[in-house]
Amino acid sequence: MSARFGERVRAALLARGPLCVGIDPHAGLLDSWGLSYDAAGAREFGLRTVDAAAGRAAIVKPQVSFFERFGSVGIAALEDVLAAARAAGLIVIADAKRGDIGSTMDAYAAAWLTPGSPLEADAVTVNPFLGVGALDGAFALAERTGKGLFVLAATSNPEAEVLQRSSNERGETVSSAVIAEVSARNEQASPTGEWGSFGFVIGATVDWTDAGLTAFAPPAPILAPGFGVQGAAPEDLRARFGTMSDCVIASESRSILMAGPAGLAAAIDARNAQYLEVTHG
Amino acid sequence: MSARFGERVRAALLARGPLCVGIDPHAGLLDSWGLSYDAAGAREFGLRTVDAAAGRAAIVKPQVSFFERFGSVGIAALEDVLAAARAAGLIVIADAKRGDIGSTMDAYAAAWLTPGSPLEADAVTVNPFLGVGALDGAFALAERTGKGLFVLAATSNPEAEVLQRSSNERGETVSSAVIAEVSARNEQASPTGEWGSFGFVIGATVDWTDAGLTAFAPPAPILAPGFGVQGAAPEDLRARFGTMSDCVIASESRSILMAGPAGLAAAIDARNAQYLEVTHG
Repeated sequence: MSARFGERVRAALLARGPLCVGIDPHAGLLDSWGLSYDAAGAREFGLRTVDAAAGRAAIVKPQVSFFERFGSVGIAALEDVLAAARAAGLIVIADAKRGDIGSTMDAYAAAWLTPGSPLEADAVTVNPFLGVGALDGAFALAERTGKGLFVLAATSNPEAEVLQRSSNERGETVSSAVIAEVSARNEQASPTGEWGSFGFVIGATVDWTDAGLTAFAPPAPILAPGFGVQGAAPEDLRARFGTMSDCVIASESRSILMAGPAGLAAAIDARNAQYLEVTHG
Repeated sequence: MSARFGERVRAALLARGPLCVGIDPHAGLLDSWGLSYDAAGAREFGLRTVDAAAGRAAIVKPQVSFFERFGSVGIAALEDVLAAARAAGLIVIADAKRGDIGSTMDAYAAAWLTPGSPLEADAVTVNPFLGVGALDGAFALAERTGKGLFVLAATSNPEAEVLQRSSNERGETVSSAVIAEVSARNEQASPTGEWGSFGFVIGATVDWTDAGLTAFAPPAPILAPGFGVQGAAPEDLRARFGTMSDCVIASESRSILMAGPAGLAAAIDARNAQYLEVTHG
């Protein structure tokens, strides 16, 4: 646990493969699991998913909005899920997509990345709309605490294309400029040869050429939604991510969670086997 | 309370002036107020600010991060502050800057904009990095519940400039494209002659020409941070916002909150008088 976040992810992906199990207790899934649509249902859903993922997958990703929906009691449920996941040795990415400036951003970073905080995770997703520089306090905190960040760079939803492919005065797309700015911070913070701890969210269905993306250095974890129900299959991973494939954390939620509580462990094993054939085959 | 959000804001600004009192219980302010740096301190800070603002200002804006910092007990404190502010007849903007896609975004919108939700506010700030279209579920919910949204468009921090001034294939800056896309939704949702309920965050120190902004229609509330400590003064309002000046909600936090609990009411009255001279003089 003392390694820097980027290196911990690298080791976990090597040991267990790229699958990240999303923890998304939305109304439809709670209903199909026979759980109540409230904080207690979300808590139970999260704890059962953690139990099934422990020892089977490297990483889990609780989706904060589905807990926040229930207010403070939902956030208390999330705290229990985060603690259980970390105690089980899973790497926990809080998918919160927070983004703000100055002391406001610092407070978000402190909430999710401070050891001993009730919402402590291993990493949190963040939004760069206010500029990568606005996240500098979060980068600094993550560096100090051995935690990670995942910066939204190129998302897989079609509504995002116009904005994320707009270009700055240097001719870079928004997505590629975000990656360049964050990579410069990884370069500065990471010992040579190690992975950066400041990762990216890049959808598995994103066309890198159209999005203006190229392979980047130093390597850093790529959290890739878009596998599973959203359309990308494990066997697409190398074609999609090319020389960056080893950095990919393949995030799936519904495709696995729809197996229900009884089928969940088997679904995780089956899906991870498909990924391992691609990445470790 | 039955009017649509845009019209409620319009009436409130006419009745009381543009001042919006931020509720930002960060460490330094809690300390200077003699309050503990924990959820109880943040709750007390928020409730006292609500008491001072009630009857003096139209609008308050709790900054969610400073409550989230303390986890679920901080969010419970925020729930108390939101409820007290709404009970006092203040318009409450939850400054959460949430942004996601699909059912995830819907859950955020439901958390903040559903009547009876523990986190119910009158409006919430949202982030368009994943595309204005990704917020459509939130627009629809706000329309159904008579609530409002404030979409980040052009923020006042210098780190944001490169991204927010990138241009799309139609030659629009990111900021102006966001305003155009949201305005089209206001056009569709708002009866002729009424203000839209989908507002914007545009910093008071933003240069509209440099940011590619022009006056927009239909009118909609503009939440403008950047007054007070950040550099803009009440007398700058008309020069900064031109023909859109009547839409401006002038948000101040530290400049007012640093008066301390004993001086808060007087600070609000004094500051609002300065604004009223400009907008109602």
